[in-house]
Amino acid sequence: MSDCVRRVRLTIEYDGAHYAGWQRQINAPSVQGAVEHALLKLTGEPISIIGASRTDAGVSALCQVAHFDTRASIPGDKFAYALNTRLPRDIRVSASMDAPNDFHARFLAKGKHYRYLIYNAPHASAILRDRAAHAIYPLDADLMRAEAADMVGTHDFRAFAASGSVVKDTVRQVFSTSVNRDGALIQMDIIGNGFLYNMVRILAGTLIDVGGGKLSRGAVKRAIETGDRLALGATAPAAGLTLMEVFYA
Amino acid sequence: MSDCVRRVRLTIEYDGAHYAGWQRQINAPSVQGAVEHALLKLTGEPISIIGASRTDAGVSALCQVAHFDTRASIPGDKFAYALNTRLPRDIRVSASMDAPNDFHARFLAKGKHYRYLIYNAPHASAILRDRAAHAIYPLDADLMRAEAADMVGTHDFRAFAASGSVVKDTVRQVFSTSVNRDGALIQMDIIGNGFLYNMVRILAGTLIDVGGGKLSRGAVKRAIETGDRLALGATAPAAGLTLMEVFYA
Repeated sequence: MSDCVRRVRLTIEYDGAHYAGWQRQINAPSVQGAVEHALLKLTGEPISIIGASRTDAGVSALCQVAHFDTRASIPGDKFAYALNTRLPRDIRVSASMDAPNDFHARFLAKGKHYRYLIYNAPHASAILRDRAAHAIYPLDADLMRAEAADMVGTHDFRAFAASGSVVKDTVRQVFSTSVNRDGALIQMDIIGNGFLYNMVRILAGTLIDVGGGKLSRGAVKRAIETGDRLALGATAPAAGLTLMEVFYA
Repeated sequence: MSDCVRRVRLTIEYDGAHYAGWQRQINAPSVQGAVEHALLKLTGEPISIIGASRTDAGVSALCQVAHFDTRASIPGDKFAYALNTRLPRDIRVSASMDAPNDFHARFLAKGKHYRYLIYNAPHASAILRDRAAHAIYPLDADLMRAEAADMVGTHDFRAFAASGSVVKDTVRQVFSTSVNRDGALIQMDIIGNGFLYNMVRILAGTLIDVGGGKLSRGAVKRAIETGDRLALGATAPAAGLTLMEVFYA
């Protein structure tokens, strides 16, 4: 312990299958809660951490970024080792480092990369059961790629906001999208400066419907123009979604 | 039900993390036991199934092949659908079909493809915790590739047999090997006409030791020549191993 309060930055990988999401909750296991509990055991301090993205129940992360303040005198890069011995195996701190006191994992994030996996085969996958959505009917990945590309640009994405969402500013910039098929697995990647709640999962559900012929090509464009949530597909399952990376300036 | 006994062939995918292996056991969950239980519920018959490979506890399979005999009048291709509604999510029958009465999943197998995954990074992976072995120290994948290639050919692999193994004929033919790195993930593939118990995991452990500099290049060749198990590395963890495919004539 020292009198000096310092800021520490963590990169965290987690399998979201057994968590009620990132955010701390009273009666359900959360990733934030698990890391804070490990920090309490390590430092003796009741530490609150702030994550770049409040991922939903069942959503995984390869590189979530978080920060916290502490008086503990543990070197920044040692937190990863010390926390991993105190965390469940489905949460790993892949890196830790000292950060400037004005570093903020959420407010300074300039962009995020999300990946959505769809297992497209008559029967579900056992190995990918918590990692990919299952689509039974054949999907046209080329059509999905073209449809996803219509997301690119600065648009008002209010049609892609979960109903009941209270966010006022629904304008976001999507930098790039891609859709690739490898056997039964379809991988959709999207990078943007920020995403509305459920935006990526609503896009994934829309791509499944367009790729399977339930929605006609142009659904994304029509929804952006009209702001009509009903022009889009259902919200695809959380299991398919992974936060891949958070970008900072 | 009919008087006619027919043979049915299944292709089965499973996540081995929560099973004591393929083979039926009295007091532990097994993949064979789970499929047989689903067949009993479906047909009312106490059916024994025979799998191509008796994978170990913790080992997964993308395409295990099995067969069984039944009097049930369910069309061959419908077993997959009917079984999947009765199986846990970590076991999926990806295909089912009628097979000739002389088809035998184990005895007619001409080859098998196994994959071993190594996560090579300072900290373990949360998402791949049940899918890959973790190696902390940097591994040289090029060295591992060269070392693995020494397996190719028809050799007496007795040095690669688990101690206590009672198999008499330890000659096997390895058709091909490959080692590829993608970021932190090293993927080793091996295809052969058959494998001794733990042979792939002993090879994986040896490659980790050679790639990390603990064993010198040529360990595989020396072990094949001398038959000495001690010339090789430790048996690598089951979690890294997946049965990818079984080949028939």
